[in-house]
Parts: sequence; structure tokens; C-alpha cells
Amino acid sequence: MSEKMTTIEGNEAAAHVAYALSEVAAIYPITPSSSIGEYCDDWAAHGRKNIFGQVLKVVEMQSEAGAAGAVHGALSAGALSTTFTASQGLLLMIPNMYKIAGELMPTVFHVSARAIAAHALSIFGDHSDVNAVRETGFSLLGSASVQEIMDLGLVAHLSSVRLSLPFLHFFDGFRTSMEIQKIELIDYADMAKLVDYEAVNDFRSRCLNPEYPQLRGTAQNPDIYFQSKEAANPYFTRIPHVVQEEMDKVGDLTGRRYHLFDYAGDPEAERVIISMASSCDVIEETVNYLTGVGERVGLLKVRLYHPFSEEHFLRALPSTVKRIAVLDRTKSPGAIGEPLYRDVCTLYQGKGTSPLLVGGRYGLGSKDFTPVMVKAVFDNLRASAPKNHFTVGIVDDVSHTSLDLGADIDPAPKGTVRCKFWGLGADGTVGANKNAIKIIGENTPMYAQAYFAYDAKKSGGITMSHLRFSPHKIQSPYLLTHSDFIACHNPAFVSQYDILAGIREGGAFLLNSPWTLEEMETRIPNPMKRAIAQKKLKFYNIDAVKIAAKLGLGGRINMIMQAAFFQIAKVIPPEEAFRYIKGAIQKTYGKKGGEVVKKNEAAVDGAVGALQELAYPESWAKAGQEAYLEKDEPEFVTRVMRPMLAQQGDQLPVSAVPADGIFPTSTTQYEKRGIAINVPAWIPANCIQCNQCAFVCLMGSFGRSLRQRRTCKTRPKILSRWKPEARSFKTCDSGFR
Amino acid sequence: MSEKMTTIEGNEAAAHVAYALSEVAAIYPITPSSSIGEYCDDWAAHGRKNIFGQVLKVVEMQSEAGAAGAVHGALSAGALSTTFTASQGLLLMIPNMYKIAGELMPTVFHVSARAIAAHALSIFGDHSDVNAVRETGFSLLGSASVQEIMDLGLVAHLSSVRLSLPFLHFFDGFRTSMEIQKIELIDYADMAKLVDYEAVNDFRSRCLNPEYPQLRGTAQNPDIYFQSKEAANPYFTRIPHVVQEEMDKVGDLTGRRYHLFDYAGDPEAERVIISMASSCDVIEETVNYLTGVGERVGLLKVRLYHPFSEEHFLRALPSTVKRIAVLDRTKSPGAIGEPLYRDVCTLYQGKGTSPLLVGGRYGLGSKDFTPVMVKAVFDNLRASAPKNHFTVGIVDDVSHTSLDLGADIDPAPKGTVRCKFWGLGADGTVGANKNAIKIIGENTPMYAQAYFAYDAKKSGGITMSHLRFSPHKIQSPYLLTHSDFIACHNPAFVSQYDILAGIREGGAFLLNSPWTLEEMETRIPNPMKRAIAQKKLKFYNIDAVKIAAKLGLGGRINMIMQAAFFQIAKVIPPEEAFRYIKGAIQKTYGKKGGEVVKKNEAAVDGAVGALQELAYPESWAKAGQEAYLEKDEPEFVTRVMRPMLAQQGDQLPVSAVPADGIFPTSTTQYEKRGIAINVPAWIPANCIQCNQCAFVCLMGSFGRSLRQRRTCKTRPKILSRWKPEARSFKTCDSGFR
Repeated sequence: MSEKMTTIEGNEAAAHVAYALSEVAAIYPITPSSSIGEYCDDWAAHGRKNIFGQVLKVVEMQSEAGAAGAVHGALSAGALSTTFTASQGLLLMIPNMYKIAGELMPTVFHVSARAIAAHALSIFGDHSDVNAVRETGFSLLGSASVQEIMDLGLVAHLSSVRLSLPFLHFFDGFRTSMEIQKIELIDYADMAKLVDYEAVNDFRSRCLNPEYPQLRGTAQNPDIYFQSKEAANPYFTRIPHVVQEEMDKVGDLTGRRYHLFDYAGDPEAERVIISMASSCDVIEETVNYLTGVGERVGLLKVRLYHPFSEEHFLRALPSTVKRIAVLDRTKSPGAIGEPLYRDVCTLYQGKGTSPLLVGGRYGLGSKDFTPVMVKAVFDNLRASAPKNHFTVGIVDDVSHTSLDLGADIDPAPKGTVRCKFWGLGADGTVGANKNAIKIIGENTPMYAQAYFAYDAKKSGGITMSHLRFSPHKIQSPYLLTHSDFIACHNPAFVSQYDILAGIREGGAFLLNSPWTLEEMETRIPNPMKRAIAQKKLKFYNIDAVKIAAKLGLGGRINMIMQAAFFQIAKVIPPEEAFRYIKGAIQKTYGKKGGEVVKKNEAAVDGAVGALQELAYPESWAKAGQEAYLEKDEPEFVTRVMRPMLAQQGDQLPVSAVPADGIFPTSTTQYEKRGIAINVPAWIPANCIQCNQCAFVCLMGSFGRSLRQRRTCKTRPKILSRWKPEARSFKTCDSGFR
Repeated sequence: MSEKMTTIEGNEAAAHVAYALSEVAAIYPITPSSSIGEYCDDWAAHGRKNIFGQVLKVVEMQSEAGAAGAVHGALSAGALSTTFTASQGLLLMIPNMYKIAGELMPTVFHVSARAIAAHALSIFGDHSDVNAVRETGFSLLGSASVQEIMDLGLVAHLSSVRLSLPFLHFFDGFRTSMEIQKIELIDYADMAKLVDYEAVNDFRSRCLNPEYPQLRGTAQNPDIYFQSKEAANPYFTRIPHVVQEEMDKVGDLTGRRYHLFDYAGDPEAERVIISMASSCDVIEETVNYLTGVGERVGLLKVRLYHPFSEEHFLRALPSTVKRIAVLDRTKSPGAIGEPLYRDVCTLYQGKGTSPLLVGGRYGLGSKDFTPVMVKAVFDNLRASAPKNHFTVGIVDDVSHTSLDLGADIDPAPKGTVRCKFWGLGADGTVGANKNAIKIIGENTPMYAQAYFAYDAKKSGGITMSHLRFSPHKIQSPYLLTHSDFIACHNPAFVSQYDILAGIREGGAFLLNSPWTLEEMETRIPNPMKRAIAQKKLKFYNIDAVKIAAKLGLGGRINMIMQAAFFQIAKVIPPEEAFRYIKGAIQKTYGKKGGEVVKKNEAAVDGAVGALQELAYPESWAKAGQEAYLEKDEPEFVTRVMRPMLAQQGDQLPVSAVPADGIFPTSTTQYEKRGIAINVPAWIPANCIQCNQCAFVCLMGSFGRSLRQRRTCKTRPKILSRWKPEARSFKTCDSGFR
């Protein structure tokens, strides 16, 4: 096949495959799968053709229940159909999933796996939803990376049609669905060659048709229901072999070989982790590092999670294995173990000798899963009595399930450049970084990866962009723990967040601020000063707001910061980068008119001259330790809320959080973010007493905190009384000009 | 406690408990759980008080999704809440179940477990639905009988409140939910003594209240979601111990002792079955029989299915066990084993030596599960290589999973009287039998059990009533395989069904027919004649239709047949029985007026004189073998439909039924039931050509079959062409007088 590289997010890869091989997509948007439907809708609106030469019919239903019902109906009528969902959305599809599987129909649901709302809602990734549908009869096939979404998504469609059975193709929500990676695209002409058209015709010939009526959806009594259920066995027993054959076909086409279970690591490993989806890349990266230092460890990647083929499992695993840790990205409350662990235990039952088996949970709700955690899992396996039913990635000081993490390790291959950006939600940082990564991915032979973390405030909140560039394939689906370059796009952040955590000695730090070096003496907190000087960072400042204001761009500082990044980071020659940026500006803003394009181009040019490298004094290395400021705040605010606001929530132990998801109210009064560039003031002379200011001004909400609060005995102490310092907000009158 | 016996169905027992301990029931009706809600609604309308002195608030929602949402809302507001559902209904509750469990709220869902619609819908019982919610965080507690529903239903409510966690209390749909049994009632005053009021107050104090606002249902980011999930561990680890404590309390009250796992059988058994719900009674009955003949077998009943407590499991199981068969009443298509089997395998993982473990499926969609099947499972365990992943109760000639059944066994204790009634849907047979069993249950020290099987035609279809009376507790939750008495309430049935299957030598056969003994020579088919004479049956006839017509009762022959039954069966002295029947008539028909009561009372009196014992000739024992009548019918009709219509569908092998639930159409034309007492005739002189006859007369539908059908290659041959003999229907003109 023709090798065509592209830099896209996981959801686009899923959409690419689903579009190719489907005639109908019945959808309902849910984070983090929505954009799969959006890509398809967009392409259909522009007339893209699938491999059958048709434009995909995209139908948005009233809910995911309707979407699944429409898929069932379309399949009954003989149209190859698909849908995209996650979490609660998938739960609403369950009744139809039983029907689709029971009626032996081919379809692929692409699922950006996400946690299910329980004590709290989480829009983030884990395998709770996938595990909620294990009994439906759908086959479950997992992808670990954006490239695998393209490759295994195709395998899912091809297998489904051949088997006349439904597949659920899943990958980690956000971590893979929104990760941008440079991957190899499989084009539609190549895909078309792999399809079993006889199976497609068989499927169509079985459909509902008034010419040869059939009776479907009967109600069966005890006399024949059980027999009918068993009559489908031959369809299901074929699954593992057919999926492997389709993996081989895709492998022949692409050169990328997949198996139901893929082993990586020491061929004579004694300790092995079994896991699936994005964790596999983290583990493989770490296994490569650990085997490099002489540890006999390995990883068994589960691709076809259900049906779980004993034959293929045993063939893939080295016979030398003595101890196994099975990782589940889900929690079955009260269960004897999590689902993948239970499968592996069941498989070994009756096998005579079995390796020592333990199970553990990781990464729930997109808790980051890093190499140091992988190492902790391997270290646990080396213990005389390895902990079973462990957790890794948190500190569990309540039921003591968690593994201790060892010293930090950095298994990424040499030559990888890692850049982190702290931005303000809606300031354009994320969009600019998406451009940056595409520029580098598509104009150089380098591999590129980008992941964007947001806080829950969205617009006006904070964004953290994690970018990697490397001459090697990037297998690091986790946040940056080490950075070569860090940018802070909002000066207010320097005193709120640990901006420079993880920056390497001699790395570069780019700050957007209006401050002179003198002003920085007071504006920059001492810990940051020490970090800058002790690590001998190259420290750059730019007053991007001033440039943007001068050009009439308001708060949109993204082009300026992007130009400054390319100027400093030198991943590619800066002049070349500027050319690409300007090309991107044309593409992004062209439809807004030449004026906007010109302003943004001017911003790029303006950045270069305005960027200043600061010669900070050596004394910063010893900048005084700040005394901890004792505040008269409720314990909840001090112990839980402050660390969360400082992006340190990951460090909170289990005991700090409520078990039932119930939180105190009126906590916003303690959060003073100071992110606004302009603050409104009330002009009494202009006031017509419309009172609309009460709706739009945050201050209005503080009236509610005046009332005395009562404490609830059974929770972490909630706000126990109204605090005098909060009144300062009330004295600020509101109004707009 | 005061011993108060009552004869009720399983759903009434569930309603009795749920009503006592709930303040709100948010419901939506679904077979076979609907009547739980109906009982509650009825009692609430009549002002019954729960143990808190309140009338239960029963709210019917728009669907089960709404019912679960309302329960979640009511719980948030501090009201003890419950709901009743099954199958698809339970699936719609899944999203709210995760929320309820995640927020650590006490509730009990009573579930009459039912199959989930897949290749076909089934309203009948199995554990597909219960297994679809294993990951939600609900505890799963199963009851095997009507008495257990009362006892363990109470345990579920008590445990739920103490733990502040949700329970799903399940029992087999139809088999237990609709089985009528004589059981001991626990009255509300006794229940009230067992409740942990401190826990109730704690629950209420945690509820939403504007006086001390709380924040619930937050969206959590990756920073604290995982920790929060683990923070609930201490709640879940307590479950097994608290449930056992509540079982002990209920045991102290009632004398009936329950444990999370209860063992029955040889204390040094080598072969053991692990199972749950109604199968346990069948297995226990069979185990008692088999240990009586020297087999070292046993049964481990699973009551608390989830969490599955390793500690309690190992304590309950004899250490002598060498081989275990785990039975699941569900199928996980493609899985490495069914859920209960996977749990047991997981439990034994790492235990060093483990018994040999096999898993099997039984009873899907209420497939009857009988002692001979239990014995087959034990026999399989004795094989040198016992079959794993087997099925029992069907003949699987496709994937050869099924166990062969051995010779028939009859493990029921001596003294049990077994009576079977073949009735026409809506002829009153079932209602009369419900009266009969209540009369015997409530007026004698005998135990009584009734189960009613229906075909899918409901009114106008057939009903089979299975009644048992015994001085011993009845542990036979399966259809009658042996009968002492059989009644046939419709003469048309004698040539359609194998009415006398399983009747014992010297048993009694009661027929309702207008035939003289001479007419019977031609009317009664030879196989039935041979059965009557060879088994030396007492053969009674009554022309109930004639008596009913004379009394102006139309087709309602139930009182006449009930009186005839009591006259013949002599379970209690007939005169006493007639007195009770008349009491029941007063109760049932009183509100319809004295006239109706009088007619029915006259029917009872009329029956006695009209009942005739027939002196059939000995020659019947050798009545000629009938030649098999070859008909020119499609293969589907001959091979599949005819056995199903003859109530022989249980004997169909797997190969006879479609794997995807797709059936041919236009098959009604081959079904000639001849059940109508009167047949309409068209009177041309009266016809105003309104054409309404076309809507109401079956004959109208045959026009559709005139069109040529096409066959579908992949299915059992469907009707391939229109058959000339079906035309005979078309020549029958319709009309009404």
C-alpha cells in the first residue's frame, strides 16, 4: 500500500474507518466520542464516498437508546450500520445490543471508553462502560493507540461482516480518542480490497424485504428458547480465528502485525503484566527500559478481550512466566476481582500448575498511568507475597490497597523533545498547539504526539498541552513528567500552579507577562525563582497581551505564543515554522476575511522582535522559602480544595475525599483566581436599575453564603460558618461599561 | 413469633416484605414482576400501613428508567424506596443503579429474574438480567422458593439499611414469582423488631435538605475520581458479614436458618453442584434421593451471589469435595464460562489444589429443570473427563454441549398427591385451581404448591395447571413429570396433546366431553385408549358444558370441574370441599350479585350427579397403532411447528430451530385447533356489507398466504409455496349472528 502519514486524533482515525465501511451511522453525541460523529457528518456533508461509492447516511437520534434502535432497524433492513458512544450512552444501548447480537447481525460500535457516573460523573476514560456490556454477545476489541484505532477498527469491521456478528471496538476515552498522533493512513481503495463481499451480500440477502416476508422478534416460550440460544454457538466459536485472519490480512497490507494477544518484552520473562488499551503502550515502553537494565519482564497485550481465547492466550505467553499481574481499568465494587482478572483466573483453572496471579486496578476516570506505576506493578510481583486486588496510581490510606511508587524513571527513547504549555481556557493555546503539532508532523520525518488536559471550568479555566516530538515512534500515552520546554501563557498562573514541575536542567521556560525583570522580583514566587536558577533554565518573557492589543486581536495571544515557541524550541528552523504557521493561519482564519488573516500574520512577525531572554540574577537560586500562610479556612478548603485548585489533586489520598460523592457547597468564595485582564466597575450615573448585572456577575452569588451553614456529621467537615474575609467580595458593586 | 401459614404466590411474598419496609415504591409493570406492584398498589389503596405506620406511596412512572430515577430521587430525599422489575426493565435501570450504588444509598429492587430479549423475546425466567447488572455495585441476593422470598427479601431490606448500600433481591421469574406455595407469613410487628432504626435515622439525616445544602452528582476530573472510588471500599467489605448477621436475626425469629452459602447433602460428599435460586430446591430434592441410594453427592446453594464471599464459601463446602459442577441459568455468548462459574474459578485460583471444576447451563427461558437433569449433572461429574461448558435439559445436536439424560427418577417424598389440569385459556380452570389450592392449603395441615403453564395464545390458548399436595414441605419447583390425577377440560385436546403423559398406574383421568362411551370409541385416539387401559386408570367423564349451558353460565365450566376434581381426588372429604368452594364462590363472585353466586353454587351441586365413571372395555389396551398420517406440508411445519403445537417443543433438538430467531410467516394456515364450541355462519339476508367481519374473523388473514413465497437459503426451509388444502378455509364465508 502507499504509505501516507497523517497527524490526527484517535476519534478521527475511528471516523475514517467507520465511514469507509458503513452505509448508516445513527448517532447521539456524548463525550469523548462526539467528534467521531462530527467528522462523519462533516465528511458526508462534503460528499465523501465510502468504499461502496455511497455517501454515509448520518442520522442523529433523540438519545443513545434511539441510536442503537436505529442501528438495529437499519441492520434489519440490510444496511451496514455503525454508531459511536461511551459511558452512559453505551448503557442506553444495552437492550438493543442483546437484540443485535441475538439476531446475529454485523455492526461495529466505536466506543471511546469512559467511566460510568456513580458517586460522581466523570467524562474521562476507563473501561467501566466496556465491562458493563460483556454479557450482550458483542465481541470486544481494544486499541492502544491512534494507529491501532485505524488498524484494529478496520479489523473489527472486516471481522464483523465475515462473522455476521456485532463488535464493540474500544479505545481509551481522551487518552487515545483525543490524543493527536502521527500515524499511517489506510486509504479507502486499500480497505476495499479486504472486504468479504460475499459476506456483505449474504447479509443483505437476509434482510427484511416484502418480497419474502420473515417473522422476526418473536416471543419464544420455554419449549424452544434454550435450544435457539445454543443454536448460535457455531457463530461465536468462529470469532477468534476469523479475527486473527482479518488481523493477518490487515498486516499483509500495512506491515503492522497484530494478534489476539501480543507479547512484548523478554522472551523468557518471569514476571508479566496483562493489560489492554492505552496502558499497553506505557507498559511496553517501560518493559523495554526494564529489560534494558536486565529485568526479566514482559507484557501481554489483550486485543480481543471478548471472546477471550484460551488457545491464543497460551500460545502468546512465554512458558517461562512465573508471576502475572492482571490490570483492569475498572472497578467491580464488592467483586472477587475485576473482569479481566476473573477471565485469566478462569482460564488457568484446571490447567494444573498456574503462574501466581494477582489483579489490580489503575487509571480509573483517566487517572494518569505512568512508567513509575508500571515499575511498581513489576516490583510488587517480585515481593514474597505480592499484593492482590491492589490499586496503583493513588495513595489509599483507607483500605491500603495501593502500591508504593519507587523512584522516578524516564524510559522514553533519547531524542524525544517534550513541551508543555499552560494556557487559559479559550485563549487559543490548544488550537495553536494543534497547529504546531500538525506542522511538525506533516513537514518533518519526526513523530509527534499531543494531548490536552483541561480543568472543569472550560472557557476561563486552565489548559495544559502536552507535546512530544521524536525521531522514534512515540509510545508514551501519559502526561509529561519530564519537559524540555514549558510555556506559561497567563501571568496569574505563576503563583497558583507548580508550573515548572518536571522541567529538565537547562530547559527553556517561556512566560507571557507584562513584567520587567525588576517587577519579577516581587511577582514571581520564590519557589519558581529557585527552580529557574537552580536548574539553569533559559528564561524567556514576552508581553503577548500588549502585542495582541496593539494589533486589535483582544485576548487572542495564541499566534504570538506559537511563534515564540518555534523561535525558542527550534524543533524545526524557526523561519520555516513561521511559513507553516502563516499557511495554517490562512487555512484557519481565511473564511473570517483578509483582515483577520493579516492581523494574525502580523502577530507572528511581532512575536520575534518582542521575545526577550532574561538574564536573571544567580541569587534566585537561593530565593527565600516562603512562610506558609495560615488562613482561617474550613478544613475542606485547606485539605481538599486548595490542592485541587493548584492542580495537585492527584496527590490527595483516599481519606481526603468523600466516599459517596457528597461535597460541601459555597466553596467558590474561597477561590480568587485573578485571571481577568479587565474587571468591570459600576458607574452609578449610567445605572437604569435593570438588575441584569445580578445575573451575569459572579459577585451576585455570594449573597447565598451569608446564611449560616450546618455541618453534617458523617462527611469530611463541610464549611462550618460564614467567613468574614468573604465579605470583601460583597462590597464590590457591580455594573458594566 | 406467631406461626401464621398462608398460601400465596412468590410475588405476593415479595410485595409483603417490600411494602413493610418501604416508604416509596416507584414502579413500572413488566412480566413477571407486575403483580408485585399490583399487590402494593392494592394494599396502599386499602390503607395498609408499613412498619413505620405509613401508607406506602406507590408511583407508576413512564418506564423502568423513570422508576429507577424516581427511586434514586426519593432516596436522595431520604425516603426508603423500592421497585420491582425484570429483564429489559432492569436493563433500563442500569444507569441509575450505578448512581445509587456509587452514592451509597440503601434500597432493595425485587427482581423476578427473566431472560433478556435477544434472538427472541422471552417473558420467562432465567438469570440473564441479574447477570447484566453485576458491575453496578448492587449486592445480589437470590431466593429459591416462595418462603425464601419472604425470609431473604426481609434480609435484603434489613441489610441494605444497615449497610447503606443497594440490594437486588431476585428469584426465578414464573417458576417462583408465580408459584403458589403454602408458607409461613412474617407479620409486620415481628419485622419491625428487626430493623436498625439508628441506621434508618442516619440515612434520613444524610438526605437532601435546604437547611444544610450539599453538593451531589458532581463531575470529577482525573485528579480525585479514582481515590473517591476506592474511598467506598469499607462499605463494600462489610457486606457479607452484615448479611449473615441479618440472616441470623431472621433465623432467630423464624427458626429458618440461612447462610450466604448453604450446604445440603452428604457431609462427606465427593461430587457437588453449586447453583442458585429455584434450581436449589430441585437439586436438594434429588440430592436427598441420591444420598438415600448411597451416592456421595451434595449441593452448595448460593444465596449472596454478589459480593461472592470466599471466606463463607470455603467454610460451607465440605473438605471432601473432589469435583464440582457450577450451574448458571444464563448464557454469556462467546465467553470463557458463565458468570457464577467464573466466580468459582477465580475463587480457587491460587488455592493450591482445587477440586475439578466444570460449568454448565440449564433452564434458559424457564426451560424446566427436573431431577433427571440434576442426576445427569452428577453423572457427568463421575465421568473420567467430565464435560465442561455443558448444557442440560435440551438435545444439542449442533455443538454437542448437552448431557444425556438417564432413566427417569422420582425423588418426591411419598405421600405427595400430584394433579394436572389441561384447560382452555380464559375458561376459568386456572382461577378454580387457585381456589382449590388455597382451600387445601388453608384448611388442612397439608403443604400445597401450584404452578400454571400457559401457551402464548393466552385467552383461547391452553393452560396446564400443576398442583401438588403433601404432608411434607414441597421442594419440587418443576412441572409434574408424574401425576396421580389428570383432568382434560376441553374435548378437542384429546387428539392434539399427549394428555396422559406421566400418569401413574391406577391414577384418575377426568374428561369433560359430551361423548358417550360408544362415541369415545371413535373420538378418543388409540394411544390415549391404550394409556387408559394399560395403566388401569379410573376414567371419569362429565358433560360440564351442558350443565353450564343449562345454568346460564355459558362456557364457564370451572366450578363444575373443580367440584368433580374434589369428588374424585379426595384430598379432603368432598362434602367439606364443596362447602369451601361455595365460600370461595361467595368471595369471588359476591360483587357480581346474588344471581351469579347462585348459578355457580348450583354448578357445584350439578357436578356431583353428572360425574360418571366409565367402564371402558379391556380391548382399549390393544387399540390399534395409528398409521402416521403423511401430510403434504412444508418441512418447517412438520418438523418444528407440529411438535410445538402439540406441546412437544421441549423435545426439539437444537438443529430444528433457527439461530437468529427468524421464522417463516403464514404458518397459521396449518393450525386447525377446533376449540370453539360455536362457529359463526354468514346469513346473506342479514348482511349490510359493513365489511367489519373481515377484521374480526381469522379467515380474513388467509388472503395473504395466496402470494407465492420465496425461500431463504440460510434458514430451515420456510414455507415454499401456498398449499391447496389451505384453500378450504377460504371457501368458508364469514358473517355473524
